Amino acid sequence: MQGEIIATGTELITGRVADFNARYAARRLHEAGLTAQRLTILGDEPPLFQEILLRALGRSRFIIITGGLGATEDDVTVAAAAQALGLPLLLDEGLLARIHRCLEERQIPWLERYGRLALIPRGAVILDAGGLACCGFALKHGDARLFFLPGVPAEMQVLFEAYVLPSLMEWAGDVGVVAQRTLRLFGISETQLQEVVSKIPEFREGVRVGYYPNFPENHLTLTVRGRDRRILEETLDRLTVALARVVDDMLLGPEGTPLEELVGRQLKEGGLTLALAESCTGGLIGHRLTNVAGSSDYFLGGVVSYGNQAKLDLLRVAPEVLAEWGAVSPETALEMARGAKTAFGAHLGLAVTGIAGPGGGSPEKPVGTVYIGLATPHEVEVWHYLFQGSREEIKILSAQTALDRLRRKLKKM
Amino acid sequence: MQGEIIATGTELITGRVADFNARYAARRLHEAGLTAQRLTILGDEPPLFQEILLRALGRSRFIIITGGLGATEDDVTVAAAAQALGLPLLLDEGLLARIHRCLEERQIPWLERYGRLALIPRGAVILDAGGLACCGFALKHGDARLFFLPGVPAEMQVLFEAYVLPSLMEWAGDVGVVAQRTLRLFGISETQLQEVVSKIPEFREGVRVGYYPNFPENHLTLTVRGRDRRILEETLDRLTVALARVVDDMLLGPEGTPLEELVGRQLKEGGLTLALAESCTGGLIGHRLTNVAGSSDYFLGGVVSYGNQAKLDLLRVAPEVLAEWGAVSPETALEMARGAKTAFGAHLGLAVTGIAGPGGGSPEKPVGTVYIGLATPHEVEVWHYLFQGSREEIKILSAQTALDRLRRKLKKM
Repeated sequence: MQGEIIATGTELITGRVADFNARYAARRLHEAGLTAQRLTILGDEPPLFQEILLRALGRSRFIIITGGLGATEDDVTVAAAAQALGLPLLLDEGLLARIHRCLEERQIPWLERYGRLALIPRGAVILDAGGLACCGFALKHGDARLFFLPGVPAEMQVLFEAYVLPSLMEWAGDVGVVAQRTLRLFGISETQLQEVVSKIPEFREGVRVGYYPNFPENHLTLTVRGRDRRILEETLDRLTVALARVVDDMLLGPEGTPLEELVGRQLKEGGLTLALAESCTGGLIGHRLTNVAGSSDYFLGGVVSYGNQAKLDLLRVAPEVLAEWGAVSPETALEMARGAKTAFGAHLGLAVTGIAGPGGGSPEKPVGTVYIGLATPHEVEVWHYLFQGSREEIKILSAQTALDRLRRKLKKM
Repeated sequence: MQGEIIATGTELITGRVADFNARYAARRLHEAGLTAQRLTILGDEPPLFQEILLRALGRSRFIIITGGLGATEDDVTVAAAAQALGLPLLLDEGLLARIHRCLEERQIPWLERYGRLALIPRGAVILDAGGLACCGFALKHGDARLFFLPGVPAEMQVLFEAYVLPSLMEWAGDVGVVAQRTLRLFGISETQLQEVVSKIPEFREGVRVGYYPNFPENHLTLTVRGRDRRILEETLDRLTVALARVVDDMLLGPEGTPLEELVGRQLKEGGLTLALAESCTGGLIGHRLTNVAGSSDYFLGGVVSYGNQAKLDLLRVAPEVLAEWGAVSPETALEMARGAKTAFGAHLGLAVTGIAGPGGGSPEKPVGTVYIGLATPHEVEVWHYLFQGSREEIKILSAQTALDRLRRKLKKM
């Protein structure tokens, strides 16, 4: 069963405010197995709204309209819709009494224009979730169902959940159940990922796959439909395993958990603590790790050693290493990782040193040159990368790669 | 001159991802005095896209289409548009060479499907901003102009600013010259700002004001029109001064420069160096400071002292201070600021300690309690805040407030 969503409001068409309502409705409909085929956003313009509404009636079985139900001059939806549908506006006495009650409770003096709020097209059914300042209404027109909802997101949402979604699901009857899973991958491009997925037999049918680049990761959404939620979840598990078999370590865990949370969980489970030595990432790795609630259980801290003196004083990098190999070198990365581990008394030390640009590059060490060092209780490892991109992209790639190196190491520990 | 925007992508119609592109284009067009009459969002469905495109051609003088230009199966925009417009797809040799070069640079192996990226409708003009992975293209069709842009917001934005907006403004011709300035404010709400602006005589006429909440800042866009760019810039200067007179220190500089860049400029001009001691912000301040190219000139580094041991060992906070007042206290913030300054041998030490939540709060020190310390060559100051919001919001507010405190201090030094 197909329908569409029309969001009205000059604040939307001028880009002043981001649309919330159309997106919210689209997402909830999709999750319920119903489809909004198109979203249309327009300003508070009656003729344009009427044209769009009439066209929508010619093709869609349900139409959700948000915005323009209030009492100010630019609230034109009700009158415009009634005119377009050839319906008279009638005064609803119950609604009028509700408005009076509402104003008294909020100690707002009565204005003439509030009377307009009680005018609804003939045949409309009021959607009243109580408590809210605003009501919506539903209308049957020929084969189609129309839902008029307020533009204030919180109010729209309440009425959508209380009336619109249940009524559409009951009407649709046989859409069944939908289960969805988002997987995160790092180290594989969208095109390569699609190539890989197209060759996995399990993905041949019965699953809808969506690709969403999310720099520096690529996300994949699996959607399956059926009758039994348990069976659908098993299908998703099977698909995840089939994908993991091919992409291996590029899949960041089976549940779409953010990388910093995944690493945090690994550290916690292993009873391990971590310290950082960040140079070109400037604190970004620490910022990401501490976005996770409870990270103080395993993250002890870090040194942002932007200048060389900090590398010597706080991380105890040997002066001859800095002098001979330079701040951006595998030798320094190793010493930084060891130094962080020692300075904080941690089990693990993770270090990044590199050239984020745009200046500071040389023929031997161009912009994007990054060394990642990891000290564990038993050994120290170092990796060399050459990243492409802007200063910020190189920082983001360096932080992500360092966390990913740590994740891969912890998997084997 | 009226036009419309069509954004394609299954991730948009399923509500998985919020539309950025259509809103961005709508806002920028509005600011330039052009109007997007409607925004249409749909999935990757050729027949529906073709229907919507043809209808748009019948009424709009310009159409901006985003999404679906990539190399994966669901990228269907180019072929569908060419078919709808009755145009053959031609292989563009220059574009093909560019794609090969791009893949080589990124060390991505060639796949058959990349060849598709070089097919464009006859008569299309390639929009290439260099550097980007993706190009767009422009097409004249009858009276209308069509612009096809990639769906990745950063790429869409660059091409929109470099080609679409200038070309439309030139085409519109009689809109004259438009000058625009974005001002950043921190510490004032959108409603307060609106109230303040409505009372400034200089803002009575001739300027269009846009308000854009941009957590944790509020941005204000001033747009003026005329014939002479120099006069317009002077008008903008006058307006900025008039606003600054009222909001004073809440205006972050006269040019809309990001706060971290502003602070960096102040430090550089003063010949001063800075070190950080970050606790609840976890590295976010360092990350922001180092997003600015050349920050190594004044930023020496920081200690992320997430655990208490780091506060003792690396920042030399006195054990009795930690024991008596706790890690989140004005006393500890002072010692941390002093400690950072000393450890890095910097002129200034900036410290943040607080409770980002959701756990860790107490009746005396609830979640959101934050102390900011600033050590200068002559003195140490400390400020106390109680922020509201999620863990991430409290981190963001803490980092922003610390940088803002530093900015205000440097103004007076």
